[in-house]
Formats: sequence, C-alpha cells, structure tokens
Amino acid sequence: MIEKTIVSRPIYDGKVIKLKVDEVELPNGKTATREIVNHSGAVAVMAITNDNRMVMVRQFRKPLERIIVEIPAGKLEKNEDPEACAKRELMEETGYTASGIRLLASFYTSPGFADEIIHMYRAEGLTGGEAQPDEDEFVELLHVTLEEAQNMIASGEIQDAKTIMAVYAWQLDPK
Amino acid sequence: MIEKTIVSRPIYDGKVIKLKVDEVELPNGKTATREIVNHSGAVAVMAITNDNRMVMVRQFRKPLERIIVEIPAGKLEKNEDPEACAKRELMEETGYTASGIRLLASFYTSPGFADEIIHMYRAEGLTGGEAQPDEDEFVELLHVTLEEAQNMIASGEIQDAKTIMAVYAWQLDPK
Repeated sequence: MIEKTIVSRPIYDGKVIKLKVDEVELPNGKTATREIVNHSGAVAVMAITNDNRMVMVRQFRKPLERIIVEIPAGKLEKNEDPEACAKRELMEETGYTASGIRLLASFYTSPGFADEIIHMYRAEGLTGGEAQPDEDEFVELLHVTLEEAQNMIASGEIQDAKTIMAVYAWQLDPK
Repeated sequence: MIEKTIVSRPIYDGKVIKLKVDEVELPNGKTATREIVNHSGAVAVMAITNDNRMVMVRQFRKPLERIIVEIPAGKLEKNEDPEACAKRELMEETGYTASGIRLLASFYTSPGFADEIIHMYRAEGLTGGEAQPDEDEFVELLHVTLEEAQNMIASGEIQDAKTIMAVYAWQLDPK
C-alpha cells in the first residue's frame, strides 16, 4: 500500500504550517500527486470543574470566519512535552491549574492532507479560573454541564471534532 | 473577537486544498498573520454490519508516511449532497449498501488552520461488502467488534479523530 516519493516540492514554510506537494508512485506503478500540510502537533484539554462542568472557550477562528466553541487547545512549542503544554494552555486560556491530568488519546485530525496530531488530556481538581491569555488572544470562558454540552452538539452550537470527542468521552466516563 | 482581513495572499491552489495567508487586524488593533487551508469538505461513515461490527479500512496516508485504520471517508465532490457522498464512499471503499443512513454530527477537524468540515453518518442494514475502489485507491477492509475497537484505541492502533469519535458514539448508542 506504500506510496513512494518521486519528487517533493516545498511550497510554503510558515509559522503554523508548512505545505509541500509530492509526486508519488502508487502500488500499481502509476503516479499521483499528494498535497501535504505539516504541523508541529497540538494538545487539547478536557477540563472538568469540581462542580462537574466542562471548561470551554469561545473564540474567533479565521479559517471559518466565525466564533466557535472548543475545549482549550494549543500548539506544541518546539521540543515541548505534551503534558506540560496541556497545563500551560489550560492556564493561559482559562486560568485553571489541575491537580490531576492524564492522557486520554492521541489522534490525527485530517490524515488525508495533514500530519497534525492532537494529544487530548483529561484534567481534574481545578483551582483558579481567571483567563490569562496572551495579549493577542481573545477568548471567552464557558462552564458547561454534560446535558448542556449534549444539547450544544445536537443544536450545532458545538461543531469542533475534539470538543465533540471530549463530550462523548465525558459521557462514557462521567465520574 | 472578530479578526478583520487587511490583505489576503493566495499561496497555492491544488486538487485537494488551497492555501492563503491573511494579514488580520485583531480586536486590540494590532495585526497578525493567519495561515489558512481551504478544503471542500468530506464525509465519514460509521457503518455497522448486521452481526454488529464496525467497518473500517486500512490505508496508507502520505502525510503520516504510514498505514492507519479509519472509518470509510472521502471528499465531497463539487455540489455533491453529503448523504449521497456518504453512500458513494461507503460503496467505493467497502462495497456495502446501507438500507438506513443518518447524520450523526458535522464538525470541523482543525479550525486553527483549516476550514475542513466532516459530515459523519451512521449506516445500518448493510448488504454487499466487496470493495470497489477507484483503480488508484488501495484499501483493506476490517470488521471490528466494539470491544476490539476499544482495545485498538487503547493500544494506539486506532489514532484517527473521526474513527475514535465513531467508536465512542457506537459505545454510547450500541443498538
């Protein structure tokens, strides 16, 4: 099933992503083109407050040209440990510190065209709760019960893959 | 929270994705750069056989340089109805026809840098089951019980966001 690279053409090298276009040889000997986005990886945090609400953020997402609701998340910095990144992003976006944090799953978001991987953590024992965003980051905190989160998925108010996955995981393991 | 576009610079216009880089004005008046991948959208199908197994495919994904396990999925063609696309991709990748198909959720896969949306369907009442892939598509069918799927997530054998979401949704609604 392997696709062997014949030629790899770099197109763009940015702050968040790189783009390259590869010519590949298919298993049947024919050739094809693959458009490939490279990304440094990210974390997402399913953070549950002591009164059993999930912490979410509303923020503007330029690719969608609108505000959406997501769980806290952010890019890995160079050589950053994913768990340290999860704690950092939780603090920056929500102001919360967690006494317990554990990895739930790591997953590729769009394997057809991108190598982005997200490491999703579950954080509990939260204290704090005043967002300390970067000065150029604009987010609004939400605290959502499981029933509210389920209704927000049903109504289309939550339309983010990692956030839907987090709500499902919470429903499966609510304690 | 809105980010107003000051300048939009097209970088690449491919078969699967487009890339542009926008200069935006932040709510505090400062400027920032946004790297934006445009994608035409896709469908994914959580297909459950009559003997209660989920249909999955193993395929090579060039951005990851390896074979991964996913539920059947594919890009929307121009003006294609998502449900028709789901039926077409299920047939092409697995050979199955479904007597019942319904939308579970629509979600953005990577809203930080891409506008890709996936419409995920649940398909049941399956008949057939011989893959009829495009001549340049190389996939291997799997039929996985819920317990096997859960173990594949725990072991890291399943590392695809939409597939993990489908397994969670199945666990929440196994009938």
